[in-house]
Amino acid sequence: MFLTRSEYDRGVNTFSPEGRLFQVEYATEAIKLGSTAIGIATSSGVLLGVEKRVTSTLLESSSIEKIVEIDRHIGVAMSGLTADARTMVEHARVEAQNHAFTYDEPLRVESCTQSVCDLALRFGEGAEGEDAIMSRPFGVALLVAGVDENGPQLYHAEPSGTFYRYDAKAIGSGSEGAQTELQNEYHKSMTLEEAEDLILKVLKQVMEEKLDAKNVQLASVTKEKGFRIYTDEEMGVVVGRMQ
Amino acid sequence: MFLTRSEYDRGVNTFSPEGRLFQVEYATEAIKLGSTAIGIATSSGVLLGVEKRVTSTLLESSSIEKIVEIDRHIGVAMSGLTADARTMVEHARVEAQNHAFTYDEPLRVESCTQSVCDLALRFGEGAEGEDAIMSRPFGVALLVAGVDENGPQLYHAEPSGTFYRYDAKAIGSGSEGAQTELQNEYHKSMTLEEAEDLILKVLKQVMEEKLDAKNVQLASVTKEKGFRIYTDEEMGVVVGRMQ
Amino acid sequence: MFLTRSEYDRGVNTFSPEGRLFQVEYATEAIKLGSTAIGIATSSGVLLGVEKRVTSTLLESSSIEKIVEIDRHIGVAMSGLTADARTMVEHARVEAQNHAFTYDEPLRVESCTQSVCDLALRFGEGAEGEDAIMSRPFGVALLVAGVDENGPQLYHAEPSGTFYRYDAKAIGSGSEGAQTELQNEYHKSMTLEEAEDLILKVLKQVMEEKLDAKNVQLASVTKEKGFRIYTDEEMGVVVGRMQ
Amino acid sequence: MFLTRSEYDRGVNTFSPEGRLFQVEYATEAIKLGSTAIGIATSSGVLLGVEKRVTSTLLESSSIEKIVEIDRHIGVAMSGLTADARTMVEHARVEAQNHAFTYDEPLRVESCTQSVCDLALRFGEGAEGEDAIMSRPFGVALLVAGVDENGPQLYHAEPSGTFYRYDAKAIGSGSEGAQTELQNEYHKSMTLEEAEDLILKVLKQVMEEKLDAKNVQLASVTKEKGFRIYTDEEMGVVVGRMQ
Amino acid sequence: MFLTRSEYDRGVNTFSPEGRLFQVEYATEAIKLGSTAIGIATSSGVLLGVEKRVTSTLLESSSIEKIVEIDRHIGVAMSGLTADARTMVEHARVEAQNHAFTYDEPLRVESCTQSVCDLALRFGEGAEGEDAIMSRPFGVALLVAGVDENGPQLYHAEPSGTFYRYDAKAIGSGSEGAQTELQNEYHKSMTLEEAEDLILKVLKQVMEEKLDAKNVQLASVTKEKGFRIYTDEEMGVVVGRMQ
Amino acid sequence: MFLTRSEYDRGVNTFSPEGRLFQVEYATEAIKLGSTAIGIATSSGVLLGVEKRVTSTLLESSSIEKIVEIDRHIGVAMSGLTADARTMVEHARVEAQNHAFTYDEPLRVESCTQSVCDLALRFGEGAEGEDAIMSRPFGVALLVAGVDENGPQLYHAEPSGTFYRYDAKAIGSGSEGAQTELQNEYHKSMTLEEAEDLILKVLKQVMEEKLDAKNVQLASVTKEKGFRIYTDEEMGVVVGRMQ
Amino acid sequence: MFLTRSEYDRGVNTFSPEGRLFQVEYATEAIKLGSTAIGIATSSGVLLGVEKRVTSTLLESSSIEKIVEIDRHIGVAMSGLTADARTMVEHARVEAQNHAFTYDEPLRVESCTQSVCDLALRFGEGAEGEDAIMSRPFGVALLVAGVDENGPQLYHAEPSGTFYRYDAKAIGSGSEGAQTELQNEYHKSMTLEEAEDLILKVLKQVMEEKLDAKNVQLASVTKEKGFRIYTDEEMGVVVGRMQ
Repeated sequence: MFLTRSEYDRGVNTFSPEGRLFQVEYATEAIKLGSTAIGIATSSGVLLGVEKRVTSTLLESSSIEKIVEIDRHIGVAMSGLTADARTMVEHARVEAQNHAFTYDEPLRVESCTQSVCDLALRFGEGAEGEDAIMSRPFGVALLVAGVDENGPQLYHAEPSGTFYRYDAKAIGSGSEGAQTELQNEYHKSMTLEEAEDLILKVLKQVMEEKLDAKNVQLASVTKEKGFRIYTDEEMGVVVGRMQ
Repeated sequence: MFLTRSEYDRGVNTFSPEGRLFQVEYATEAIKLGSTAIGIATSSGVLLGVEKRVTSTLLESSSIEKIVEIDRHIGVAMSGLTADARTMVEHARVEAQNHAFTYDEPLRVESCTQSVCDLALRFGEGAEGEDAIMSRPFGVALLVAGVDENGPQLYHAEPSGTFYRYDAKAIGSGSEGAQTELQNEYHKSMTLEEAEDLILKVLKQVMEEKLDAKNVQLASVTKEKGFRIYTDEEMGVVVGRMQ
Repeated sequence: MFLTRSEYDRGVNTFSPEGRLFQVEYATEAIKLGSTAIGIATSSGVLLGVEKRVTSTLLESSSIEKIVEIDRHIGVAMSGLTADARTMVEHARVEAQNHAFTYDEPLRVESCTQSVCDLALRFGEGAEGEDAIMSRPFGVALLVAGVDENGPQLYHAEPSGTFYRYDAKAIGSGSEGAQTELQNEYHKSMTLEEAEDLILKVLKQVMEEKLDAKNVQLASVTKEKGFRIYTDEEMGVVVGRMQ
Repeated sequence: MFLTRSEYDRGVNTFSPEGRLFQVEYATEAIKLGSTAIGIATSSGVLLGVEKRVTSTLLESSSIEKIVEIDRHIGVAMSGLTADARTMVEHARVEAQNHAFTYDEPLRVESCTQSVCDLALRFGEGAEGEDAIMSRPFGVALLVAGVDENGPQLYHAEPSGTFYRYDAKAIGSGSEGAQTELQNEYHKSMTLEEAEDLILKVLKQVMEEKLDAKNVQLASVTKEKGFRIYTDEEMGVVVGRMQ
Repeated sequence: MFLTRSEYDRGVNTFSPEGRLFQVEYATEAIKLGSTAIGIATSSGVLLGVEKRVTSTLLESSSIEKIVEIDRHIGVAMSGLTADARTMVEHARVEAQNHAFTYDEPLRVESCTQSVCDLALRFGEGAEGEDAIMSRPFGVALLVAGVDENGPQLYHAEPSGTFYRYDAKAIGSGSEGAQTELQNEYHKSMTLEEAEDLILKVLKQVMEEKLDAKNVQLASVTKEKGFRIYTDEEMGVVVGRMQ
Repeated sequence: MFLTRSEYDRGVNTFSPEGRLFQVEYATEAIKLGSTAIGIATSSGVLLGVEKRVTSTLLESSSIEKIVEIDRHIGVAMSGLTADARTMVEHARVEAQNHAFTYDEPLRVESCTQSVCDLALRFGEGAEGEDAIMSRPFGVALLVAGVDENGPQLYHAEPSGTFYRYDAKAIGSGSEGAQTELQNEYHKSMTLEEAEDLILKVLKQVMEEKLDAKNVQLASVTKEKGFRIYTDEEMGVVVGRMQ
Repeated sequence: MFLTRSEYDRGVNTFSPEGRLFQVEYATEAIKLGSTAIGIATSSGVLLGVEKRVTSTLLESSSIEKIVEIDRHIGVAMSGLTADARTMVEHARVEAQNHAFTYDEPLRVESCTQSVCDLALRFGEGAEGEDAIMSRPFGVALLVAGVDENGPQLYHAEPSGTFYRYDAKAIGSGSEGAQTELQNEYHKSMTLEEAEDLILKVLKQVMEEKLDAKNVQLASVTKEKGFRIYTDEEMGVVVGRMQ
C-alpha cells in the first residue's frame, strides 16, 4: 500500500489515483512536528500564544520568533518550518504596505490571509517577480490575528492554500488535545484576560517541558493598541497567575 | 493491473495505452472527496446550493465560501479543492470585466464557462501572462449559473475542460444519489421556491450531519436581482420550511 | 511484452525499438473511446453526422457540440477528447480568417486540414506564439468538410498529423462497422438526401441508444449555403424518414 | 539482453555501451514500416517511384503525397512517417528559395540534401528560429532527385543525418528485395523509359496489392522539364506497358 | 525502512510522508563530518574557536581558513563543507557593505545572520542576480559573532535557514560533547580570557590529535577592536596557559 | 557488474564511482565501429588515408566524404559518425577564417585542433551562438593534418576533448592492428611516396574488402600545395604501385 | 550497500544520507586515474614536476601538456582529465589578466587559486557569461605554483572547490606513495636543485615505465625568471644527474 502511494507523490504537484495531493499532505505533517500555537478571538481583541522549544539553557529564548507583526493591526503566530514562514511574512508585509499606500486604508485581515494563501498555492512555479516562490509547499501553518472594520478576527491558513475563520484555533504538535480543550472552554463573551489564562492553561497541558515565562510567548491585537508582543514583565504576571 | 497503470500517469499529461489521461481522471476523484453542490435551472432563474462541512463549533461557517459571484449576472458553486477554484474564479471575473468594458454588454454564461474550461485545459504550460497556470489539472468542478439574453442557464465545468448545459446537476461526494433524485423530481415548470425545497431535500439525504441554516448555503441568479447569496434570515426561512 | 513496451512510451515523443511512437498510438485509442462521427462527400456538397451521448435527461443535448464551423465554407466533425478539439478549431479559424484577409480568397479545404495537422505534429514544443501548444498529442480526430474551387471535399485528420481525402469516412467507437457499411453503400452519384439517409442508417447500427432527433446531429457544406447545422425541424424530418 | 539495451535508448540522444544511438536506429525502423520508394538516376534525368497504400476504396489516392517538389529542379520521394517529412520538405524549400534569391542560381542538389541532413541531426535542440525542430529523430528517409550543373543526381538521406549519392536506391518496407533487383538490372546507359519500366517491375514484386495506375506514382526530374509528377494518363500508359 | 525513505529525498526540496526534508537533514550530516567550531558570548565581546585538521606536516596550517571576517564588527566560524561557506561569506560581506553604504551605519548582527539564512533557503532556485545560488542545500553551518548597538551577540545559522541566538554554541563533529561541557561551564559574567580557556579546554577534549598552537585558531569580536584573528604569538600565549 | 555500471552512464555527463565518464567512453566505441583512417607526418608534408565502405555498386563512392578541407593548409580525416563530424568541421572552418581575417595569418594546426576539442568538451550545454552544440559527446574522432610555421603536423582529436600530436596514427575499426604496423614501419625520414605506400599497405591488411582505387582515398597537406585530395588518376597510380 | 549508495549520486549535486556529495568524490577518483604530478615550494621558488604517459613511440611527447603557464609569475601542474583543465586554466588566465589590467599589479597566488576553486564549485549552473561552466564537477586537480609579494607558494586545488597551501604535494595515481616520500625528505631549507632531484626521485619510484628525459617534465616559478618550463637540454641535465 505504502509503496504504491509513493509512486504518485514524487512530483510536487501530482494527483494520486484517489484524487489526493500527497506533497501538500506531507507538508501538513511538517506542521504536526512543530511547536504548538494557539489563537483566541474575543470581542475586544485577538490573542496569540506559542510554545517555545528552548532546547538549551545557552539558547537565547528571545531569538525564537514564532509570533511576528505584519502590520500595525495584524500579527501571525506560526507552527512548522519557521524558516519557510519568513517568505510568507515578508509577502504579507509588502501586501499590507502596498494596500495602505495605494488606498490609504489598512489591509483587511481576510485579504491579508488570502494573499498569503495565494502565495502558498503557487509553489512549483518559476519565480519571476518580487516574491521568491518555493519549489515545494510551504511547511508551515499560520494563525493570522487582526482587527479591522469588521472587528477582531482570527484566520487559520494551511499549506494547501485554504483558510477559514475561527473563534479559537490550535496548530502544531499539541493541536489535537488543545483544540478539544478550546472547544470546551471557549465562549463568545470571553475577556482578553480570560483568553490569556485559557491559552496558558492549554499550552501547559500539551507542552512536554514545564511552562515558564521563558518558553511561552503571548501577543495581542486590539483596536486600541494594535499588535503587540507581551513584555517579559507582562509574561511574568500572566504566568504568575497560573500558579 | 494497478502497477501497470501507474506507469502512465506520472507525467501530468500523458496518454495510457487505452487512450486515457489518468491525471485528469484523478483530479476528478478529488471532486468526489468534496462536499456536495447542486444547481437547478428554472424559467425564472438558477438556484445553487452547497453543503458546508463545519468541522468545529469554533469554525466561523461564513468563512467557508463555496458559492461566489463572477459578475452581477453569473455565480458559481464549487466542489473539490476550493483553493484551486480561486484561480478559476479570478480568471472568470477578469474575463467578465474585460468583456463588459470592451463590448459594453454582459459576458454570456456559455462564454464565461468556456473561458474557465480553456484555462483548465492549459495546466502544465509555463505561466506567461496575467493568469497563473497550474502545473497539474485543477482539482475542482464548477456549477456555473447565470442569466443572459438566452435566459437562465446552468453549466457544469469539469477538470478535463469539457462543459455541458444541464437543467439540474449535482457534483461532489453525494452527487450520485443526488443526481438520481434530481432526475426524478425535476420538471421544467418548477418555481424558484420549489427548487429551493428540492435542493435542501436532496442535500439532506446526502449529508452526514444534520442539515441546518449554518451548514448549507443557497444562492440564486435571476434576471431581476442578478446573483445574490441568501442571507441568514432567508436561509432560516427556507430551512424552516423543511421541518 | 507489455512491460517492455512501456519502457518506450513514457517520453511523449520517443521511438520504440520497432520504430513506433506509442503516445501517438495511444492518443488514437482515445478516439476509439469517442462517439461515432461520419462524413460523406457528394457532388453537391459534403454531409457530416455525429452521435451525441446524452447521458442524462437533465443534460441539454444542444450543449454537446461535436460539429462546428471553421469558416463559411468549411466545417468539422470530431471524435475523442472534444476539449482538445477547441484548440485545433480555434487554430483553423484563425488560419482561415488570416488567409481570407491577406489574399482575399477563401482558404482551401486541404490547406485548412494541413494547418491543423501541422499543429498536431508540434505537441511537446514550448508554446511561444498565439497558439497554445499541447504537451501531448491531441486526443481527437477531425473530419474536415468543405467546398472550394476544387468542389466538395472531405478530409480525415489524425493525431499523428497525417491526413487523407475520403469519399466517405467514419471515426470514433463505431468506426469499424460504420466504415464497412459506407464502403458497401457509397456511390459517387449520391445525392445529399441519400447521404443523409445513409449516415443515419449507419449511426443507427453502431449506437447503443435508440437514435432520435436529440442524440444525432447533421450538418452540410454546400456551394450555395456554405456550412450549416441542421435545425431541430430539419433533424425531425430526416429522422422521421428513417421510421 | 533486450532489457539492458533499453537502459540506454530512452534519452533521445545517448550512446549505448557499444557506441550506438538507439533512438536513431529505431527511427530507421519506422522507415522499414513505410511504403516502398525507388529512385533511379539516368543520364537524361532522375526518376522517382513510390507505392501508395490505398487502404480503402473510399480513400482518394491522389491525397497520398509521397513525392513532392522542392524546387523547379529538385524533388523528393519519402518513406516512413510522412507527417515528419513535411517539416523537412518545408525546410528544403526555404533553403532553395533563399539560395536562389541570394545568389541568383539554383541550389545544388547536394547542398539541398545536406541542409535536410543538418536539420535531421539537430533533433532534441530547443527550437529558436524559423524551423520547428523535432524533439526526436525524424522517422522518415528521403530520396532527393535533382538536376544541376553536375547533371542528374540521386541522394539518399537517412534519419542519422548521413547521405550518400546513388545510381539507384530503394527505401521502405520492400527495400531489401528491391535493392537487389536494382543492382542486377541497373546500367549506366539506361533511358528514362527503361527506368520507368524497371521501377514498376520492382514495385510490382515488393507490393502486397496488385499494382495499378492508382496505387503507384512516378515523377521525373530532367534538365528540360524540371520536376514533374506523372499525370493519370501518363501513369496509365506506363502501367499499361507492364501488362 | 531505509529504502522507502530514499524514495522521497532525491528531489532536493521534497517532503517525506512524515513531513521531513531529507536533503536538508543530510546537509546537516555533512556538518557533523566537519571539524569542531565553538563560539562564546561574553559581556565584553564574542570569542570564536575552531579546530584545524592538519593532515600533513607539509600542509600550511594558516591556509585552513575556518574563521573569516564579514565586516569590521562581525566574524564567522564555520564547520562542514568550507567551500560552500565562501558563497555565504561573500553574500554576507556584500550585504554588510551595502547596508553601511546606504544607511551609513553598521549592519546589525541579526540582520547579517538572517540574510545568510535567506540565501540558504533559496537553494534550488535558478540563479539570476549577483549571488550564485546552489542547486542543493549549503553543507555548512555558521557561528556568526558580532557586536552592535545591542552589544556582543552570537548566532547559529543552519542549512535549514533557521537561526537562533546562543550564549555559547558548538558545531561540527565534536559538538555533542562540547555543548554539554559549555552548558556546565558557561556563566554570564565570564571574561574573554576565561572564554579563551574554556574554548581550548573543550576543543582539547573533542579533538583526536593533540591540541597545539597550529591546529586551533581563535578570534574575537569586541566593541573596541572589532573582529580580529589571534596572531601566532597570541595563540602561543593562550595555548601555553593550558599546560 | 554491468547493471551497476548502467546506473551512472545515463546522464550524459556524470562520473561513475571509479571516476569514469561512460558516455564519453561509449562515444569512443562508436569510433571503433567506423572505417579505418590513417595519418602519417613526413618532413615534406602530412598524408591522410581512409577506407571507404562502398556497400553497393550503385553507391557513388565519391559521395562518401571522409577527408575534408578545413583551410588551404589544414585537412582532416575522420572515423565514426560522419554526420557528427560536419558540425566540428564547420566549427574549425569558421575558426580558421576568423583567425585569418583578424590576424592576417593562417591558424596554427594546434590551435585548430584545440578549437575542435573545446567544442567536443561542451556537449550538453545549451546552444546559444553560432555553433549548434550536441546534447551528447561527438561520436567521431579526427586526424588533423596541417602545415604551418612549425612545419608539417598530425594531431589526433578524441571525443573526450583531449588531443595529442603523432608522427603516425590510425583510428577506426582496424586501428589496433594498423597502429602496430605503423609503429614498425614508420621512420622520421620517410618520403611522401613511402608514406603513400605504407598507408595503402596498412589499409589493405585491415580492410575486409579488396582494396581498389574506389574504396580508399588519400589526401596530402604540403607546404607547396596545401591540402589536396588525390584525383582518381593519382589514386590509380598509387594503388597500381601496390600490385 | 553499493546499490543503496547509487540512489543518491545520480543527481550531480545531491547529499547522501551521510552528508556526502558522491559526484564530487567520484570526480576525485578520476584524478587517482591520472598521471602523477608533484610540487615543492622552496625559499627561492616553486618547482613542479609531472609524469607523461607516452603510450606510443609515434606520440610526440611535447604535445602532452600537463604543466602550463597562467601568468608570468604563476603556473599549474595538473592530474586527471586534462581536457577539463583547459577551462580552468583559461579562467585563471583571464582573471590574472583582468587583475593586472585593473589594478596594475600581479594577481596574488592565493586569489588565483580561489578563483579556480570558485569556478569548480559552480558546476551544474547554467552558463551565462564568458566562462563555459561544466554540468558535472571538474575531473582534475591542480597544483598552483607562484611567486608574489608573500614569496613562493604552492596550492592544491580539488574538484570540491577546497584548496590548501602545501610545502610539498603530490597528486595523481602515485600520490599516496609520493606524498609519504615527500614528507620524509622535504625540509624548509631545500634548494631548487635539491627539489629537482627529489621530484625526479619520487616520480621514478611511482612510475611504471622507466623515467627518461621524454616522459617527465619540470617547471619552476622563481622571483627572477617567473614561470618557465625546462628545456630538453635542462631536462637532460637533471635526468642525467639521477643515473
